[in-house]
Amino acid sequence: MKSSGLSALGRRSEAPPISWLMEQALARPQLISLAAGFTDSETLPVRLTRELLNGLLSTRKTGAPALQYGTTAGNPLLRELTTRRVRLMDGAPEGHTAYSPDRIIITNGSQQLLYMTVEALCDPGDLVLVEDPTYFVFLGILQSHGVGARGVRLDQDGLSLDHLEQVLERLKKSGKLGRLKLLYLVSYFQNPTSVTTSFEKKSAALRLLRRFEKAAGHPIYLLEDTAYRELRFHGDDVRSALAVRGHADRVIHTGTYSKPFATGVRVGFGCLPQPVFRAVLHIKGNHDFGSSNLLQQLIARAVISGRYEDHIAALQKRYAHKAQVMLRAMQEHVPAAVELWRPRGGLYVWARLPGSIRTGPKSRLFRSALAHEVLYVPGVLCYADDPTRPQPDHELRISFGNATDEKIKLGVASLGAVLRETMGSKPS
Amino acid sequence: MKSSGLSALGRRSEAPPISWLMEQALARPQLISLAAGFTDSETLPVRLTRELLNGLLSTRKTGAPALQYGTTAGNPLLRELTTRRVRLMDGAPEGHTAYSPDRIIITNGSQQLLYMTVEALCDPGDLVLVEDPTYFVFLGILQSHGVGARGVRLDQDGLSLDHLEQVLERLKKSGKLGRLKLLYLVSYFQNPTSVTTSFEKKSAALRLLRRFEKAAGHPIYLLEDTAYRELRFHGDDVRSALAVRGHADRVIHTGTYSKPFATGVRVGFGCLPQPVFRAVLHIKGNHDFGSSNLLQQLIARAVISGRYEDHIAALQKRYAHKAQVMLRAMQEHVPAAVELWRPRGGLYVWARLPGSIRTGPKSRLFRSALAHEVLYVPGVLCYADDPTRPQPDHELRISFGNATDEKIKLGVASLGAVLRETMGSKPS
Repeated sequence: MKSSGLSALGRRSEAPPISWLMEQALARPQLISLAAGFTDSETLPVRLTRELLNGLLSTRKTGAPALQYGTTAGNPLLRELTTRRVRLMDGAPEGHTAYSPDRIIITNGSQQLLYMTVEALCDPGDLVLVEDPTYFVFLGILQSHGVGARGVRLDQDGLSLDHLEQVLERLKKSGKLGRLKLLYLVSYFQNPTSVTTSFEKKSAALRLLRRFEKAAGHPIYLLEDTAYRELRFHGDDVRSALAVRGHADRVIHTGTYSKPFATGVRVGFGCLPQPVFRAVLHIKGNHDFGSSNLLQQLIARAVISGRYEDHIAALQKRYAHKAQVMLRAMQEHVPAAVELWRPRGGLYVWARLPGSIRTGPKSRLFRSALAHEVLYVPGVLCYADDPTRPQPDHELRISFGNATDEKIKLGVASLGAVLRETMGSKPS
Repeated sequence: MKSSGLSALGRRSEAPPISWLMEQALARPQLISLAAGFTDSETLPVRLTRELLNGLLSTRKTGAPALQYGTTAGNPLLRELTTRRVRLMDGAPEGHTAYSPDRIIITNGSQQLLYMTVEALCDPGDLVLVEDPTYFVFLGILQSHGVGARGVRLDQDGLSLDHLEQVLERLKKSGKLGRLKLLYLVSYFQNPTSVTTSFEKKSAALRLLRRFEKAAGHPIYLLEDTAYRELRFHGDDVRSALAVRGHADRVIHTGTYSKPFATGVRVGFGCLPQPVFRAVLHIKGNHDFGSSNLLQQLIARAVISGRYEDHIAALQKRYAHKAQVMLRAMQEHVPAAVELWRPRGGLYVWARLPGSIRTGPKSRLFRSALAHEVLYVPGVLCYADDPTRPQPDHELRISFGNATDEKIKLGVASLGAVLRETMGSKPS
């Protein structure tokens, strides 16, 4: 047979780098994985879920509709509750058009919304801007669709506007602006760095993108991924880009109930402007004509009862504590030359080593860490394959999401020993 | 702005024709919809689901894992149970390689498997063979991906092998065989006709496809959709194409737990040969990195307890009864010139009117039916946009799935009156 018969997309779709890391973890039962973005097991709302489902399924009147097909856009009540929640978090007045339930699509986690957005907007050869570094599964979506990524520098206070402008200017000069479709921004406690981009920076980014639209010949959207928004430990909430006056028609907002509630319950959402809403809705019709009604109604009950907010409050405390455990252990075990980015929310600590120390999957450090039964995510996996930017290979992401306090301490102690050994033997 | 900025796929993705029909139904509360493929509400397993979920969530030990992320391919136990069920239905011996759990991917209903299969195999301009008529949402998937469809005649005893051979020969002669990727077959109680294709015909179809592979230059797969397999009223079960000796590497098998159990619980599966398995798994990783663990474990418990099979037995009786109610009402009310295809399973009755009577969305009959508060699916929506085949416009699909006995009788009586009026006023 001359060929496999696979499509271009079929051939381009690759196993995400994380699955290789997962296999390492499965193959070594003693291994402490600080790699996976799994959430905390102890706080998973087992009893709450049981009680809510019991209520929902206690009568045929409420139970039967939850077990029947719904509509493609999602359960009307959950769409309503979702806009209300996001609007209240943003402090926007009732009736603000950016938060209309008509703009909401309920999806299988926010991941599906990311996928469908790329499908709806990007042809092979198109370009997308991403933070440098960014969420690696999003890079996998782009790669499988033959879409190029260009990195925009991420500082500890968020996206670099100067660099964004430079990148846009360069695309304009090289005649590639017509291929640019969107800027992808994980705006709260970003994966992998835990950096949050301020409301002011988001406003400025939207204005910048708008300025280049004429040359692009089409809208350039801001795809704002708020998956970690609710996992905040300290400080005030930041308004989402939907609240930027006059730009809601350029914001594709996505969030999720899975990450804060239970990752085994896959319910996320998008809030989208026309005509992206219509295209994504039709794509969703072809994917699965609507997410599980049972799960949607479970989440709706959690929100209405107020117990969703209670759960989040408990979760925030829990993660704040675990982040603290991890940071303390790092201060104790990790050489001072390692720069730690202190999270104010989310699931991750980002560490930057001296430039001479490689952290990639084939590096001495990574292999040594594996030999010492500890797994991290090499930073290089989080960088786009951008021909105009370097892909730094001296960083790493570790997560305090899933591991217990004890495992965090043990894992960081091992990692620290490996770092000391590796860094000590290198000229600095 | 010169352009919307949507991708080719985004521009091609359309609202499925059924959503227009749904809107009609919503806009007219008095309307009796015999159009939607919704399932029976009275038999939805509300109590069973509550009991199973209570069991699952009664302890943290079983509950917490169900609320955590799983793996992309799906819950290992459900993958095991799924191969076992399909293997037993097919009467195949233990250890038969076609039924290995390693070939199973759990999906959000079988719909997602259909979508990902098209993604994995088809580029724009490729061709797919479909039954004539076929499941219209699958046609929507093809259309959105810029993939052409060619119809193969469907007789009351299944796919026409003579016509399949003709179509393949014609594609070969016209040099288009290199673009042909698969034959899509809804092999049990097909949507929309309720026709079942025999095991012998499936074997012969696989041999035929194989004969043309050399000229195609790549594998030509049989995508067998068994969504309605378990909804059988009479007669023996038919083995799936997986059981055809020596051809399992060309069969992409898909089935679902949603349709027989509860459509609000979106759990389907695919059983796939390499390299399609690998490509679809990577695509699934990008879509959502795995279906809801909670729903998968619910289904696993239903199957293990034996209550899934009990539920199916009750469902079969229920649908057999409702089909009977519909057929009796049709015999009473519908003119004898209308040819009825009697279902032996599934959710649909297919009716073929004299060729001079149009049934399409703009036809006098359709408008008159709406005015009489009854809705059907025009047959023309189920035909591929195939330049080499006519699209008959004198058929209709009605469903006994969701409507109550009373509504079925009332709806068919109205439809009968409309048919008598329309056909009486036409020269025959």
